Amino acid sequence: MNAARLAGQVRIVGTGLLGTSIGLALRHLGVDVILANRSPAALRLAIDYGAGREAAPGDDPALVIVAVAPDSTADLVAAELDAHPGALVTDVASIKGSILADLTARGADVARYLGSHPMAGRERGGAMAARADIFLGRPWVITPHALTTPAQERLIEALALDLGSTPIRLSPDEHDRAVALVSHVPQIVASLLAARLLGGSAAVPALAGQGLRDTTRIAGSDPELWMQILGANAAPVTEVLRAFRDDLDGVVAALEDPAAPGAPTRLAAMLTRGNQGVARIPGKHGSDARYETLVVQVADAPGELARLLTEIGEEGVNMEDLRLEHSPGAQIGFAEIAVVPEAAGRLAEALEARGWELARGGQTQGSTS
Amino acid sequence: MNAARLAGQVRIVGTGLLGTSIGLALRHLGVDVILANRSPAALRLAIDYGAGREAAPGDDPALVIVAVAPDSTADLVAAELDAHPGALVTDVASIKGSILADLTARGADVARYLGSHPMAGRERGGAMAARADIFLGRPWVITPHALTTPAQERLIEALALDLGSTPIRLSPDEHDRAVALVSHVPQIVASLLAARLLGGSAAVPALAGQGLRDTTRIAGSDPELWMQILGANAAPVTEVLRAFRDDLDGVVAALEDPAAPGAPTRLAAMLTRGNQGVARIPGKHGSDARYETLVVQVADAPGELARLLTEIGEEGVNMEDLRLEHSPGAQIGFAEIAVVPEAAGRLAEALEARGWELARGGQTQGSTS
Repeated sequence: MNAARLAGQVRIVGTGLLGTSIGLALRHLGVDVILANRSPAALRLAIDYGAGREAAPGDDPALVIVAVAPDSTADLVAAELDAHPGALVTDVASIKGSILADLTARGADVARYLGSHPMAGRERGGAMAARADIFLGRPWVITPHALTTPAQERLIEALALDLGSTPIRLSPDEHDRAVALVSHVPQIVASLLAARLLGGSAAVPALAGQGLRDTTRIAGSDPELWMQILGANAAPVTEVLRAFRDDLDGVVAALEDPAAPGAPTRLAAMLTRGNQGVARIPGKHGSDARYETLVVQVADAPGELARLLTEIGEEGVNMEDLRLEHSPGAQIGFAEIAVVPEAAGRLAEALEARGWELARGGQTQGSTS
Repeated sequence: MNAARLAGQVRIVGTGLLGTSIGLALRHLGVDVILANRSPAALRLAIDYGAGREAAPGDDPALVIVAVAPDSTADLVAAELDAHPGALVTDVASIKGSILADLTARGADVARYLGSHPMAGRERGGAMAARADIFLGRPWVITPHALTTPAQERLIEALALDLGSTPIRLSPDEHDRAVALVSHVPQIVASLLAARLLGGSAAVPALAGQGLRDTTRIAGSDPELWMQILGANAAPVTEVLRAFRDDLDGVVAALEDPAAPGAPTRLAAMLTRGNQGVARIPGKHGSDARYETLVVQVADAPGELARLLTEIGEEGVNMEDLRLEHSPGAQIGFAEIAVVPEAAGRLAEALEARGWELARGGQTQGSTS
C-alpha cells in the first residue's frame, strides 16, 4: 500500500459512481473515509463495498468531497460548508462556473470552496459500477477562484495525485468553455446524429460501419444527467453550437449551390479544418504518432488470439494498445497492435516468419467509402 | 483454394485500394483478372502485388469493374461499355444515382451497367494498402434499375459473395439516401466538430476523452475524395443536414431560453431520441445486445494479456470481441471481453477464482462527465 499524500479524514457526500470510486481508492491508500448519502440503503451498499465508514461523533474532516448530481451540488456544498467550518469543500460536478456563482449568490463561505472535476466516468453509474482505478491517467481539473489559497490548491492536487490523475488548473469559466468543446457539444451532436437514424429506412442500419458507430456511441448516455449538465453550462455550449451551426450553414449552402463563388473552397476548408482539428487530440485514434500499428489476421478459433499475444511476448515486444476488429459472421478477425516504431519492422518480420498474415502499417478502423 | 462463383474473365479498371483488393481476392479464387490503369507504374505495382495481369489481345471479359474516383466513374463506365459490348459493367463508387443519371444522359448502354458499392475501405488508400480480405463480412450494395436483368443481379451477387461480402439490394436513390445517413452526414458532422477545436484554448486537447476521440475520428479522412462524394450526393446529404440543423436550432433555442414552454422537453426528447437511434445500429459499441461485456484488469506487463486470453480459452469460452483500454502513463489496462450472455456469469466466476480482478457487465469506454 502506498502512503496517501492526503492527511486527515476525508468526508464524501454522495455514494454514486464517482463518490464510491473515490472512497475505494482512498481506502486502498489507508485514508480514513467517512461516507454520507441521504439514502441509508445506498450508504450501506458503499460501506459494504469498502469505500469508507459511517459518520461518527467527533469526526472532523479536513476535506469534504461532494459527489452528487450537478443540480444538487451547490445545495450540498453550502450545507457542508456550514456543517464543517474547518474543512475545505470540493465537488466533482462536470460544470463549475454556475456552482460557484450559485454559492456566491447565496452567501456561502466560498473562501473554503474549491471546485474540481475528475474527467472520468463509465457508461453506467451507481455504486455497483464503482472502481478504484477509474481516475488513473485521467485529467482532474482544479478550478481556483479569487479567494483560493495555494494550500487549498495543494490539497485538491494531493487528492488528484493520490487517485492517479493528472491535475490541471483552469478558471471555472475556462473549464466550462473547454468541456463545452470536448464533451458537451460532442454529446449533443452525437445525439442529434443518432436521432436522424429514426427517420431512415429499414435498410439503413445494415449499412452502418465503424464510422457511424464511433460518431454516435456517446448518444447512448443518460438523458437525465445530460439535461442537468447542458442546462448548467448553457452559455458556453450555445456559443460553440452557434459557431458549429454557422459552419453547417456554409456547408449546406455550398452543397445546394455548388456553382456559387467559393462553394468548393468552403467544402475543402471544412474537411481540411476537420483534419487539423482531429490532429490536435491526443490518444489512440488516428493521431497518435507515437506508435505504429500492425494489423494481423487472426482466425476466429479459440486460442488463436492468445497464441498471437504469447508469440509477441516471446519476441520481447511490448504491446502499447490492441484493438480487435471482427465483422459479425466473418470467420476471421484482425488484431491491430500498436507498438513503438522501433519495434514495428522487427515484429512484423518475426510474426510473418511464424506464419501470421499481416498488413503492415495500416488501420482497418473506418472506411472512406 | 475455394472455387469462385464467378465464371469467365474479370477486368478491373483502376488499381487503387478497392480495385487492387478485389483483384487480389479474385486471384486467390483462381479467377483470370485483367488489370487496367492509365498510369503504367501504378498498373505494374498492382500486377507485382498479384492482383491480376495486363490486358492481352483476345481478352473477352464477362464482367468489368470500374474502381476509380467517384468523379471519373461515369466516364470510364461509358468507355468500358463501348469497348466491351459483351460485358456487364459495374463500379464501386460510394454514390450511385448521379452516375446512372450521367450515363443515361450521355446515351450509354445502361442496360449493361449495374452499379454496386462495397461498403469497405481503409483509412489509407492506394494499391499498397490493398488486402484481399477487406470485404469480409461487409455489406455490398447492388443497385438495380429499370433495365437490370435477374442474370445481371446474380453476376454481381456472385462477385460480392466470392469476396465474402453480404449482398444488399437497394435502388440507386435508396442507396444514396442511406449512405447520406450512415456515412456522408456523419463525415460532415465529425469534420465540423473537430474543426471547432481549432478555436479552443491550448488546454482543451488535454481534456479530451474517448467520447471526443470517437465522435471525431473520421474527421481524419481524405478531403479530396470527400469533396467528390459530397458533391455527387448533394441532394440526399443536404436533406439530412437540413433536418439535423432544424433539430440543432431547437436545442440552441431550448438552451438560450430554458424557461420557454417546452424547452426542457425538447432537450429530453433530443437525448432520448439519440438513445433510440444508437440502439438501431448493429455492431460492437453500446447497442450490441447479443453479447455481455466483462471488464478485466490487466497489469501493463509483458504476457499478461496473453495469459488472460489463454485462461479464457482454457475455460472453453469463445470471445466474441475484445477491446483494450489503456490510459497513457497508467500501469494498468482493462480488457473488455464480449461473450454470449450464457457464458458471462460462469466466466466471471472462473476468472475471479484464477485471481483476475474484474468489474462485471460494465463498459469503460467513454464517460458521462
